[in-house]
Amino acid sequence: MTNTSLAAYADPENPALPKVGMDIELGRTALLITDPQIDFLSPKGAAWDAFGESITEHNTVENIGRLLQASKSAGIEVVISPHYYYPFDHRWDFAATGETLMHKLRMFDRRDPLSLEGFDGSGADWMPEYKEFIHDGKTIVCSPHKIAGPQTNDVVFQLRKKKIDKVILAGMAANFCVESHLRDLVEKGFEVAVVRDATAGSKLPEGDAYLAALVNFRWFANDLWTTADAVDRLSRAR
Amino acid sequence: MTNTSLAAYADPENPALPKVGMDIELGRTALLITDPQIDFLSPKGAAWDAFGESITEHNTVENIGRLLQASKSAGIEVVISPHYYYPFDHRWDFAATGETLMHKLRMFDRRDPLSLEGFDGSGADWMPEYKEFIHDGKTIVCSPHKIAGPQTNDVVFQLRKKKIDKVILAGMAANFCVESHLRDLVEKGFEVAVVRDATAGSKLPEGDAYLAALVNFRWFANDLWTTADAVDRLSRAR
Amino acid sequence: MTNTSLAAYADPENPALPKVGMDIELGRTALLITDPQIDFLSPKGAAWDAFGESITEHNTVENIGRLLQASKSAGIEVVISPHYYYPFDHRWDFAATGETLMHKLRMFDRRDPLSLEGFDGSGADWMPEYKEFIHDGKTIVCSPHKIAGPQTNDVVFQLRKKKIDKVILAGMAANFCVESHLRDLVEKGFEVAVVRDATAGSKLPEGDAYLAALVNFRWFANDLWTTADAVDRLSRAR
Amino acid sequence: MTNTSLAAYADPENPALPKVGMDIELGRTALLITDPQIDFLSPKGAAWDAFGESITEHNTVENIGRLLQASKSAGIEVVISPHYYYPFDHRWDFAATGETLMHKLRMFDRRDPLSLEGFDGSGADWMPEYKEFIHDGKTIVCSPHKIAGPQTNDVVFQLRKKKIDKVILAGMAANFCVESHLRDLVEKGFEVAVVRDATAGSKLPEGDAYLAALVNFRWFANDLWTTADAVDRLSRAR
Repeated sequence: MTNTSLAAYADPENPALPKVGMDIELGRTALLITDPQIDFLSPKGAAWDAFGESITEHNTVENIGRLLQASKSAGIEVVISPHYYYPFDHRWDFAATGETLMHKLRMFDRRDPLSLEGFDGSGADWMPEYKEFIHDGKTIVCSPHKIAGPQTNDVVFQLRKKKIDKVILAGMAANFCVESHLRDLVEKGFEVAVVRDATAGSKLPEGDAYLAALVNFRWFANDLWTTADAVDRLSRAR
Repeated sequence: MTNTSLAAYADPENPALPKVGMDIELGRTALLITDPQIDFLSPKGAAWDAFGESITEHNTVENIGRLLQASKSAGIEVVISPHYYYPFDHRWDFAATGETLMHKLRMFDRRDPLSLEGFDGSGADWMPEYKEFIHDGKTIVCSPHKIAGPQTNDVVFQLRKKKIDKVILAGMAANFCVESHLRDLVEKGFEVAVVRDATAGSKLPEGDAYLAALVNFRWFANDLWTTADAVDRLSRAR
Repeated sequence: MTNTSLAAYADPENPALPKVGMDIELGRTALLITDPQIDFLSPKGAAWDAFGESITEHNTVENIGRLLQASKSAGIEVVISPHYYYPFDHRWDFAATGETLMHKLRMFDRRDPLSLEGFDGSGADWMPEYKEFIHDGKTIVCSPHKIAGPQTNDVVFQLRKKKIDKVILAGMAANFCVESHLRDLVEKGFEVAVVRDATAGSKLPEGDAYLAALVNFRWFANDLWTTADAVDRLSRAR
Repeated sequence: MTNTSLAAYADPENPALPKVGMDIELGRTALLITDPQIDFLSPKGAAWDAFGESITEHNTVENIGRLLQASKSAGIEVVISPHYYYPFDHRWDFAATGETLMHKLRMFDRRDPLSLEGFDGSGADWMPEYKEFIHDGKTIVCSPHKIAGPQTNDVVFQLRKKKIDKVILAGMAANFCVESHLRDLVEKGFEVAVVRDATAGSKLPEGDAYLAALVNFRWFANDLWTTADAVDRLSRAR
């Protein structure tokens, strides 16, 4: 899978799917970032071997930062959907493939829901460059999702309690938590625009997960933006 | 995207993701088929142009029939999650890309939830070869899902009311309703095996949706079977 | 526990709970009616023995009709959440008390999701006086809920697809489907006003279910109206 | 409406609702406790004025402790569904009555999802007598629910990941979080037995919330036990 095919997927010459689009209305739009955590995004993180190449290729770390900055400047709500695993999560009776990999890599591990021992700077912690935005006293930090979608946390509820019905979605990983959030948000009646270079996917023998996600973003999202698009739209929105 | 790449995706030589697997326990396993309807599966259906090639390539119509037959012979529950659109569904205030396409093609159209006028043999009706199985007085026919996942119908509830926690999943379309059912079932705590040649995907300039689904089946499902596997396992299960 | 009369519950002299309130905004408010069906509301229905006294006391049948009329005049969306049981629903492996009663009474029975044989005028059919409103070509008739709440149908989704976030709620039965809809809608981020005399509850040795519901409406709803209030507010809303 | 005393509600002489029942199967049954926290259960807690009388009357604090002890002895899973409010939860655009009361009383307040500053011994902390059970390294402590039901946290998911389909339910408050958990668990296909004296309700001019809950437990639960029943059943279960 070369960059040529990436480009081809990214910009089909004769698109067959209808163009829908999404406008930003400041009061009812939020930025939602999944898993902006060290284990996904940092070379020190547990999953870098699988995701590093795509993260580097898309400049994902910087792009998520630009989205956070632009969203805070525009004054829209910023919502984080994190991933944590506690000791009891490792005792589940069964797990599918991707879950098993995450558990095996000890991604997002924490000692206890009510312990922060060893948390600071661990793989479960935020990327350092995002902390100023996440800790500004305004960002909504949801409970952790447990596999990939928001069915197991309070993302949908928090959005609705702020009368949000349009979501700018980015984060990690493209075909996993981003896409599962996209799919569930759409089933819950949100409009969603995915920022395609503020995410990244694994490159494994099983396939290029970023490309798989891109196909599905085109089917499920109302719009597909680059970070540059999103930042520009946010600066002009009212 | 040639058949060479299909084969490569289908059977990576050195898989990186862990092998999990799913055993069939008769009393707690069901076959779940999404959208076994004319509009998806028949050359007369509204979406054949986009899906016909993949359906033909995988022998999808026959394979779904073989799954139905084998499941009935094994005595497991068979659950159908259909797709219908009513006039009020066409008045939604917004729709994402895939939805817009389905509405535009008038897929799965019915006059009213309480009308069957014009239904028989329409695009919303079952494929004729499946009717003997679906109308046997035992099959659980759920309410329609409205986009692609079971968040909007009673699939999860019906499964739980029969103490089912393992699902053999197939139907249409691979990256759309099948994958959205897979993702939501996993978030609801089911084990799922997807039957990879009892489904099919669109081939559009935006990408080969079947290949995208295959990548994600490998991440989210507990197991990935062929129809031959599934039929063999059902014949040996107890 | 001294003030046990209906009047005392209905109008506590010194309320302790905060007053919240809900305004009607036409474009984002809908009327939602649960189970406006013969088996609940007609002397011919299967459950009249348990519910008839309360229905008569509150003038429920007429009040629901007034709400439908006023909502149609105001031009707001009207959404119906019905109750149907199919043969496979009677084969569930387990059922709680209220469900067991409904099954035993054969409430809301239908032959098949795709059959209307024997439906017309049956206990599962709409009350005759509501048909002109429900069949006007605009009312959104959701899939059936299967116990009491909208977790198993498309009510939440249909509301969101019309950008509705405020619900005027009424129907049958007060502590069962109305209250379960209320509770789930609140968890999904809706504002809800319950119309307290456009519902009714069972009077059984186990307690007065209407009074139980009234206590909980006061805890969970944003507002509690009479039909007269609701009709007046609808006539003045914009 | 004559038999309004607690005793009359608790034991109707001629019950009209069918008797269903629930057996404990050790491997698929869990104890679920909602909100075993100081703000509800301690005279030092924020809500004691409204709930203290009922807590004292039922001996709720001790009974929850007995359930925890008996469940740990029997070796079944123990799951806690807590209540926490963070600063951003106080900025929701709207809240219903009960929510407004909880916010006004500053119940369950925490500084931040990732801060434990001031948590120890605060109203959001566990009751001291339960800590040995909750901190035994085995108890599953879910994310907080945000209003009253498990729709906004991972209770259902955690239960399913341990193949649990029967729940012994107790905690605070009877008509609020206990009943909302009951109603949602039933919609998600669980069997539930409520322990009626291991909970308690508010006594306010708006009505006796415990009595309201008792009516609804009888409609929605598979069984209704006393703590003595539950402890006895747990000691005999296998």
